[in-house]
Amino acid sequence: MADLMERLSLNQITTEKWSLKEAVDGCVRAEIPWISIWRHKIAEIGLQESKRIVKDAGLNVSSICRGGMFPAPTAKEREERLDDNRRAVEEAAELGTDTLVLVCGPSPDRDIDTARNYVEEGIEKLVPFAQSHGVKLGIEPLHPMYAADRSVINTLGQANTIAEKYSPEQVGVVVDVFHVWWDPELYQQIERAAGRIVGFHVSDWIVPVPDIFKGRGMMGDGVIEINRMRQAVEQAGYHGPIEVEIINQAIWDRPGDEVLREIKERFSKHV
Amino acid sequence: MADLMERLSLNQITTEKWSLKEAVDGCVRAEIPWISIWRHKIAEIGLQESKRIVKDAGLNVSSICRGGMFPAPTAKEREERLDDNRRAVEEAAELGTDTLVLVCGPSPDRDIDTARNYVEEGIEKLVPFAQSHGVKLGIEPLHPMYAADRSVINTLGQANTIAEKYSPEQVGVVVDVFHVWWDPELYQQIERAAGRIVGFHVSDWIVPVPDIFKGRGMMGDGVIEINRMRQAVEQAGYHGPIEVEIINQAIWDRPGDEVLREIKERFSKHV
Repeated sequence: MADLMERLSLNQITTEKWSLKEAVDGCVRAEIPWISIWRHKIAEIGLQESKRIVKDAGLNVSSICRGGMFPAPTAKEREERLDDNRRAVEEAAELGTDTLVLVCGPSPDRDIDTARNYVEEGIEKLVPFAQSHGVKLGIEPLHPMYAADRSVINTLGQANTIAEKYSPEQVGVVVDVFHVWWDPELYQQIERAAGRIVGFHVSDWIVPVPDIFKGRGMMGDGVIEINRMRQAVEQAGYHGPIEVEIINQAIWDRPGDEVLREIKERFSKHV
Repeated sequence: MADLMERLSLNQITTEKWSLKEAVDGCVRAEIPWISIWRHKIAEIGLQESKRIVKDAGLNVSSICRGGMFPAPTAKEREERLDDNRRAVEEAAELGTDTLVLVCGPSPDRDIDTARNYVEEGIEKLVPFAQSHGVKLGIEPLHPMYAADRSVINTLGQANTIAEKYSPEQVGVVVDVFHVWWDPELYQQIERAAGRIVGFHVSDWIVPVPDIFKGRGMMGDGVIEINRMRQAVEQAGYHGPIEVEIINQAIWDRPGDEVLREIKERFSKHV
C-alpha cells in the first residue's frame, strides 16, 4: 500500500451516531477503503446483515472493536467474559478481518496487580480459539487516565511483554497515538514491537482536553507528533490500514459526511 | 516520627479558597503539624508576612509548591523561568523548608523530546543555587494526562533518571499517589528511588474523574492502594511529612474546617 490514502480506515466510533449501514455508505461516498467495526453496532442488526452490508459495499474491515474486559471478581464471571471474547473472535472471522482489538479491562477493586494477572490469563485462554479462527489478538494499551475504568494495560511496554509470550501470528499490539504519545519509552517500545504491530490508530490530543472519555481531537488540532509515530511504526514493519478513531461529542454532533471530508484532508496532511 | 498523625501535612491547594493566614489558623485548630505552601498564596501577602504567620503559629513547612516550568521557546524565556525558580528557592529557604517541589512544565510545541531536554538543562542550572541555599529540588512526575499542559516528566522512572545525576542532597523525587498509581513499574521505581524520596503526597483517584485538573478525591473514595504505597516509600527510607494534596472543586466549596476534620479521619484510616 504505497499510497497513504489507500490505508485510511474509518473507526466506526468516530461517527457514533451512524448505524453500520450509514457508516458503510458514508465510506463509499467518501472513497474511504477500510472500516473498523464496533460490536454494539453489529448487535443492532445482527452479524449476517452486518456481513452482507460490508460485503456488498466492497469495503475492507481493518479490525473489530473490541474484545478484552478480562478482569472480574469471580472465576465464573471471568469465564463469561471469555465466552464473550469468543463471540468477538467469531464476529471478526465472519466479517473478514484477522484483527480483534483488545481493550483489556479495569480492575474490579483496588488490586491492580491481580487485575493485570487476570488479563494475562484471559489472553492465554483466548489464544487457541482465536488462532483456530485465523484471528490475531491486538493488545491496545490505553492511556493511564483510563487505568481505573477501562484498562489496566497502560503502556506499550506492558503490551509488548504480554504479546512476546506468543507468536506474532497469535498476539500483537495496537498503537493508538492518543494513548501512548506521552510515553518516554515510546519509540524504543515501537521498535521492540517490530513485526508485531497489528494496528495503528490516529486522532490528536487537544489542550485543554474537553472530556476524559469523549475528548479526542481531529488530527492536526493537538500536540501529537503523528507523522513521526507513523514513520516509527513503518520502520517497525507495519504498513497496514490506519484507523481514524476520534471519540468526541462535538465531532459526533456534526454531519457525518462533513466529518469524513475533514478526516481525509487532515489525514493527508498530518498522518 | 513514629506516629502517623505527626507526619500529616496540609498541602495548601486542598483549601484553595483560604489565604495563607486562614490555612495556617485552620491547621492550628485541627492540630495538623505541617503545611505545604503555594507561591501564589505567598505572593498575596509577601514573603516576610508569610514567614511571620507560619513562625508565630509554630507550624512546620514540608515544602514549597512549586518551581519548575522550565521549557520555553527561546533561550531568553528559559532564563526568565530560571530566575523565577531562584526566587522559589529563596522563598523555600526563608520559610524554613529544605524542599522545593518541581512541576517541570509542558512543551511549548509538539516537540516533547526537546522539552524534556529543557527540563534537564533547567535543573542542571538551578542545582548550585538551590544547594547554596540548603534547598533540595524534588522532581514530581505528573500523570501522563498532564503531559501536554503541565509537565513532560510523567513517570517516576524519568524523575529517577534525572535525579540520579546528582547527590540526594541536591535532587530528589516526590511521589504523589494520584500521578503514579497506575504505573506498572511503580514499586520497582520506588525502590530505585531509595534515599532520594523528598515528599509523599496523598489523595485518591475517583471513578469517574469529575474533571481533568480538579478531579482528585479524598483518600478512601477511590481506587489507589495508598497504604501499600506508603509502606513502599517507607521501605525506601522516606519517613518525612505526608502531604494531603486534593485539587477538587467540590472540596474547595466546603468549609475548610470540615474538610480538615475529614482529612484527619481519612488519613488515619487509609494512609
